Amino acid sequence: MSKKQNILILGGGFGGAYTAMHLQSYLRQGKFEITLINRENYFVFQPMLAEVVGGSLDILDTINPLRKLLPKTKLYVREIEAIDIPNKKVILTPKFTHKTVEVPFDHLVFALGNVTDFRGMPGLHEHALPFKNLADSLTIRNQLIDVIEAASCESNATLRKQLLTFVVGGGGFSGTEVVAELNDFVHKLVKKHPSIDPNEIRVVLAHSKDRLMERELSPSLGKYAGKLLKKRGVDVRFQVRLRAATPEEAILDNGERIPCKTIISTVPSSPNPLIAGLDLKIEKGRIVTNRMMQAEGRTDIWALGDCAAIPKPLNDGFYGPTAQFAIRQAKRLAKNIVAEIDGGVKKHFCFKPLGMMGALGHHSAVAEILGVFKFSGIFAWLLWRFVYLMKLPGLSRKLKVALSWILDTIVPIEAVQMKTAPSQGIAQFHFESKEIIFNEGDVGDYLYIIVDGKVEVFNTFDGKERRIAELGKGEYFGEMALLNQRSRLATVRCLSPVNVLALKKSDFGVLIANFSELKENFEQTERSRRKHIS
Amino acid sequence: MSKKQNILILGGGFGGAYTAMHLQSYLRQGKFEITLINRENYFVFQPMLAEVVGGSLDILDTINPLRKLLPKTKLYVREIEAIDIPNKKVILTPKFTHKTVEVPFDHLVFALGNVTDFRGMPGLHEHALPFKNLADSLTIRNQLIDVIEAASCESNATLRKQLLTFVVGGGGFSGTEVVAELNDFVHKLVKKHPSIDPNEIRVVLAHSKDRLMERELSPSLGKYAGKLLKKRGVDVRFQVRLRAATPEEAILDNGERIPCKTIISTVPSSPNPLIAGLDLKIEKGRIVTNRMMQAEGRTDIWALGDCAAIPKPLNDGFYGPTAQFAIRQAKRLAKNIVAEIDGGVKKHFCFKPLGMMGALGHHSAVAEILGVFKFSGIFAWLLWRFVYLMKLPGLSRKLKVALSWILDTIVPIEAVQMKTAPSQGIAQFHFESKEIIFNEGDVGDYLYIIVDGKVEVFNTFDGKERRIAELGKGEYFGEMALLNQRSRLATVRCLSPVNVLALKKSDFGVLIANFSELKENFEQTERSRRKHIS
Repeated sequence: MSKKQNILILGGGFGGAYTAMHLQSYLRQGKFEITLINRENYFVFQPMLAEVVGGSLDILDTINPLRKLLPKTKLYVREIEAIDIPNKKVILTPKFTHKTVEVPFDHLVFALGNVTDFRGMPGLHEHALPFKNLADSLTIRNQLIDVIEAASCESNATLRKQLLTFVVGGGGFSGTEVVAELNDFVHKLVKKHPSIDPNEIRVVLAHSKDRLMERELSPSLGKYAGKLLKKRGVDVRFQVRLRAATPEEAILDNGERIPCKTIISTVPSSPNPLIAGLDLKIEKGRIVTNRMMQAEGRTDIWALGDCAAIPKPLNDGFYGPTAQFAIRQAKRLAKNIVAEIDGGVKKHFCFKPLGMMGALGHHSAVAEILGVFKFSGIFAWLLWRFVYLMKLPGLSRKLKVALSWILDTIVPIEAVQMKTAPSQGIAQFHFESKEIIFNEGDVGDYLYIIVDGKVEVFNTFDGKERRIAELGKGEYFGEMALLNQRSRLATVRCLSPVNVLALKKSDFGVLIANFSELKENFEQTERSRRKHIS
Repeated sequence: MSKKQNILILGGGFGGAYTAMHLQSYLRQGKFEITLINRENYFVFQPMLAEVVGGSLDILDTINPLRKLLPKTKLYVREIEAIDIPNKKVILTPKFTHKTVEVPFDHLVFALGNVTDFRGMPGLHEHALPFKNLADSLTIRNQLIDVIEAASCESNATLRKQLLTFVVGGGGFSGTEVVAELNDFVHKLVKKHPSIDPNEIRVVLAHSKDRLMERELSPSLGKYAGKLLKKRGVDVRFQVRLRAATPEEAILDNGERIPCKTIISTVPSSPNPLIAGLDLKIEKGRIVTNRMMQAEGRTDIWALGDCAAIPKPLNDGFYGPTAQFAIRQAKRLAKNIVAEIDGGVKKHFCFKPLGMMGALGHHSAVAEILGVFKFSGIFAWLLWRFVYLMKLPGLSRKLKVALSWILDTIVPIEAVQMKTAPSQGIAQFHFESKEIIFNEGDVGDYLYIIVDGKVEVFNTFDGKERRIAELGKGEYFGEMALLNQRSRLATVRCLSPVNVLALKKSDFGVLIANFSELKENFEQTERSRRKHIS
């Protein structure tokens, strides 16, 4: 036990970041080190994401660099490719190279949050916007501005109505918050467009249960929130589900078809694809743990937050998927891991919140304290802001957000779009003479089609280069590793300056799977090339 | 002449937005109306874009909604597809539909700015980042954070060095500003990464002339700026050009190859592709005008700003491509158009600036007043900030930026990335039974491959539907309009719920042009199908 144990945390949201923060205070004992893997280099203050959609908050205010919050944690800003529990390692997706990275662990903490569920709902993956992270908020915001801009110069009445209809699926915390912000924002936007009558706007919220936020709030508060939204013009539909989506309409499971160009789905019960294949007990997409937050039957695998099903006392179900639980779980979980390593005493997670709150757009919220006082409107909203301000990590951040809130009341919100570069479909690469495009043993990431130039393909045999082929304009290479899910069997080097089209592995896969002529063609080439290599 | 004339402005930068602003004050005469087309719904304060890269400014501070600046101007937030001068109309790219929009004009004002030139430089289009608009600034910022994050966990020395090398091509205003901000930002970033030694960072600026900003500043001030940058560690190279780029290196025209993962090109002399094909006189990518800013030989076509070559008095060349000229040109141009419509007297554009300035990163700039006083450092920078603050349109904007600048000195800058959703390669669409995928006569935008479901293809003949084909899984449609650059010859309707892969016109074009097997296949199908239709 002289070697330090590695505690590996997956995810940098409330659960993951706070676990690392608490673990850092036990580092002096020198028994372990902490590693955290997150897709972004920042922590997102999730409860404020809906405000980014409406533009009430500057974007930078909702995020905090992980490296600043966690100075003693080793941070990998990467995508996770796979989790290998038997061999106790996590594999990261290559970045800037063609090689994967392996991170070993002694203890693994799942804090991956939940994933919006599009399974079994045709067209949702393609045509509905998710609302999970900062990128999603920006995408939704840009979409709202886009449709309003388009509607304001549109004379075709059908298309115009479609552009001004908005459908949100799922009435949990995020669905409710986003529909409230959306409703406020589009009404505010159209004031700048005299050609649009505010009565043309239609905002629909479809929720499968009989009240809003049933997993997060008490029945009475949830019902209350529903009434408030209706009063503000949102068409709230209960016991009906978003069933399908097309480029032209949202389809509900009662058969109703709503023509619209904006569909947001927030139904959050899909297992994270990373978790799905693992040998762990899963319940509605969440990892089932014991009351110490260890995955059932394991002492080295932990889970918390929205990706964990942590039992409440007295068989009263599981804890809800909200930040207030995740933050408290993180503290307990950090102590339990330290106890596991030290041979100390682990304790159950147990927490009963004093109050609960849900935001309902600009200047309005619902809140309940001690299960008794229930109120809404500007006072609930001020309370909401105050509580979250206190939860924001870092004093300078608190100061900046507070100032930004004050500024927002002075300076009107601007409806500007924040777009990054338009997506590039098929990538093009240029290589100079003698450059290596990929090496034998690299991960297969692209199929290449030569636009101009010449390359040679070779592998190494008995320490010597053995040329396999020379390829030119119109020919392709790289298909073998993609077709067989293996690493590259040969090296490709340029004999002249070379331009190629590069088709991503995922795009190649989807084309090949559905386009039979292409498939035969590639398989034929692959068979004949394999003979030359082996 | 009883009908109102339509003045159509292309572009909403300094030139376009300010022209519209000045024209608005003559609207009461009732002789014309103003229309402006811009890709974004906001005006970008260009001189501050470099500060977005470094994060010294919150993003929203650099932008201002056009609709707010120009309440009396009709605004189209669209891409321009083509400009048809003989028929006096501009064609806009379809959005949310498959139909183009035509906007007629009596007077046309070109204010499209310039376009970064990647022609004749192999690999730059593919591997160099442009720096023209807000999206570019965000992309550069994200890239800088990405490479630093990757370098901090990288043990391979070659890759590490490559990740920490940055090459900027072009030492005009934007190249100089961006290299200065970049240099500051990466040095600030690595302070959070103890594993990176600041001496590992290498920042190179390659400029083809013998001094920086030769088109924008006086010789002495340009030389001065170069010296300052060198002092701050930037490897400034004169009389050498970025010649080519690959995923692994930047290649200079003296043959030097610099291994790096970040290349930024700011060389701005390419004609805007929209201008290129028109029957107008072009000089280094700019529309040549007379001294009244009318395109040579025309009275109804105008140009200003960076996309115009407007002659100085006494055959002293053309005015420089900076905001201070564009703003003054806009005022004169608005008056000249009104004079042209009224039969009044048009005047020459004539302006001699009192001073000039260039920003050189955080807390530093160079400035020259009356061609005599020349200074640098914090005072030049404060002057720069003050002058630009005064130029920012709108009082509330001025207030917010001023406050944000003050806040920046209190609250440290955060190195957070702002990414919108990752780009999707090949799109997938879902349609429900009986939905129309496209109509006869629509613009051809995609090739569709059926993943599952059935569609029928039909056209209308003598007012009746005539079925041409029924297609299913693995078959494709939509290639005809793409291969022949025409509109759709038939309508496609779903016979069941349908999932398709949709390949964008541009992607289809590039695949077909380079992938001979595919091309033959498509052309064969197209020939046999054409027989059925005609």
